[in-house]
Order: sequence, then structure tokens, then C-alpha cells
Amino acid sequence: MQLLKDKIKAEGLALSDQILKVDSFLNHQMDPVLMKEIGKEFAERFNEEGITKVLTIESSGIGPGLMAALELNVPMIFARKKKSLTLSEGLLTATVYSYTKKETNTITVSTNYIESGDRVLIIDDFLANGQAALGLMEICEKAGASVQGIGIVIEKAFQDGGAQLRKQGVRVESLARIQALQQGSITFVEESLVTAYE
Amino acid sequence: MQLLKDKIKAEGLALSDQILKVDSFLNHQMDPVLMKEIGKEFAERFNEEGITKVLTIESSGIGPGLMAALELNVPMIFARKKKSLTLSEGLLTATVYSYTKKETNTITVSTNYIESGDRVLIIDDFLANGQAALGLMEICEKAGASVQGIGIVIEKAFQDGGAQLRKQGVRVESLARIQALQQGSITFVEESLVTAYE
Repeated sequence: MQLLKDKIKAEGLALSDQILKVDSFLNHQMDPVLMKEIGKEFAERFNEEGITKVLTIESSGIGPGLMAALELNVPMIFARKKKSLTLSEGLLTATVYSYTKKETNTITVSTNYIESGDRVLIIDDFLANGQAALGLMEICEKAGASVQGIGIVIEKAFQDGGAQLRKQGVRVESLARIQALQQGSITFVEESLVTAYE
Repeated sequence: MQLLKDKIKAEGLALSDQILKVDSFLNHQMDPVLMKEIGKEFAERFNEEGITKVLTIESSGIGPGLMAALELNVPMIFARKKKSLTLSEGLLTATVYSYTKKETNTITVSTNYIESGDRVLIIDDFLANGQAALGLMEICEKAGASVQGIGIVIEKAFQDGGAQLRKQGVRVESLARIQALQQGSITFVEESLVTAYE
């Protein structure tokens, strides 16, 4: 998605060979027009999949997830990383380890909202090790719902999450795929001749 | 906002005289069409205020905040309840006590995104004791930005947050104001003859 790549080039900061800071438009400040375009792009790519629910995880997945759900005209659910006071019974859970934060979270979704027969599109802001996506897939499996695809805003293609997910046969669509980060430099995966100059 | 009140009547659950569960459309599952309408309503109410930024707090404020920002065509910033790894320097902070969760959080916003001269619209999903809104106002004050208003999706008018905020002279617009909760019953504040039957 060229608009997104242009934004990453203009405002993204490679803090190291692992960390890309995009908090000016994605995960602290959000650009609502870009979020809307991202939602449209996901909806186009998964338009034929008969999606009934969009599932994401708090907090940075909510923006892209909500906009994709709006375009697909289905509800959006965000998994919680902490147990809510008003979500007490009927919980689907999965354990997710965060390599960046070095902590394990139990993520939860109410059984009321992901159900048997649902055709789920999972959306997240980043894909690195794939732990969050695997946790969300586990929740769908426990609910008896099928995962029709995974939509990622930015994939760190130099980490193995994308390969792991694709090996399981799930369709993963990433709107921008990062080949490599170096302090001060961001390289995208060459996806076609059109974007090969990157 | 009648559409919202109708949704609360149809799907909201008063779990006690304090707790209103609206996780089917607002804070776990989200209804994207309703969120869009909420965003439009906030934008209309604060249209004359020259808003330059929408400020909210993760996680449930992000949906309404993002949609308001889209309509107002300004960026949205969500305050974090936990320190992020990539947000290390230049932080504006405030301490927020949550009565429901009985815990104190230090909320943070980067100095890059709320600045002197900004005209801020604060958005949140619930207003009860007003602690979150007061924390967000403190952050704006520290940044030298002015708070032009506070937009709330659901105000628990039987708690004193709304009164406290309005006493400080800030304009608070709540799209639905709850007069009282009893297990199984939700009463709205009578706001005009049109809605007086409630």
C-alpha cells in the first residue's frame, strides 16, 4: 500500500535493527484519514471471504480494526490483555508472550462475540514474531470460528511470524513489509517492479 | 443522542447500581456504524471550537476518539496507561486513580503530539468520577494546550465527575446521561420534553 509506505518513509524512525517507531500516525498519535484508507484496503483484499467479525487486540489494533469493520459492515471485537471487571464469565483465553515487552499476557474474548460459524478477519498493527496473531487464532479455534485471513499494517518480514502463520495455511496480507531496519534506514521488501526502486 | 440511548436500552445491562455493561457495542465488541455516528455527533457539537487535536485514553476511548478526529479532520492521540518501549523521552504524565479497578495508573502522552497552542477536544467512553478526564486535562495544561471541550459517550450522572468538570468551566457534552442504574433497569436524565418519556 503505497500511501502507507510513503508515510513510513516520511515519519517512521528506525531506532535500531529491531524497533520501528511509528507513533506519529499509528500507535500513539493516529492519522484518522490514513486509518480509513487502511480499513478500505483490508476490506478490498478480504472482500470475497464472507467475513462476519473483525478481531483485533488492544490498543493499537483498534484503529485499523475498527476502520476495516466499518468498510466490511461487520462488528469489531478487541481482545483484552487484562481481565475486565464486567467480563467475568464465558471467556475465551490464550496466552501471548511479548518478546519486546518480555511479559506474558492472558488475552481474553467473551464467548458472546466470537461464535461457532463466524468467519473472522484478524487485524493487527504489527507482525513480528506472530505471537499475538497466534493467540487470536487460538481464541477463534476455541470458539469454533474460522480464521479467513490476517490483515497486518506493518510486517517485520525479517522476523519469522509471517512465515509461521503462512506455513499454517492462513492468508496473511501485510500492507507494508519491512525487509530490514538499520538506525536511520528502512528498507521495504520488493514486491513488484513498480515498487522495486525501494 | 437518540440512536445511542436506543442502543443502551436494547443492549446495555445494569449489573448493579454502579456498573453498566455495554460491551456488545462500546468497550469489547464495537459497532463501527454507531462509532461513526458518535464521531459525527461530537464533531457537530464542537465544530465551532477550532479543534486541532483529539485526545483520548486507551483502550475504549480509541473508537469514539478516532471517529471524532476523522470528522474534525485532525489527528487523534491516545494516552497510554503503561509506558511504551518506544516512548522514552519527552513525556507528559498525570496520575489517574481508577475507582472501579482500585488502581493508580500514570498516564503518558509524548510532548511531540500535544503542544502549546493546541486546541484539544478530550473524548472518553465513560464519565463517572472524572479521574481520567482530569488526568487528560492536566496533561494538556502541562503542554500549554487549551482544552476546548470534553466529549463523553456515556455519563453516569449520578456520580460527581461531570459536576466537577463543569464547575471548572470546561464544556462537557455527554451523548447519553444515566440518571440511575438498578439491576435490570436503566434510567436516563430527562433532557427535554422530547425524551421525557424516558
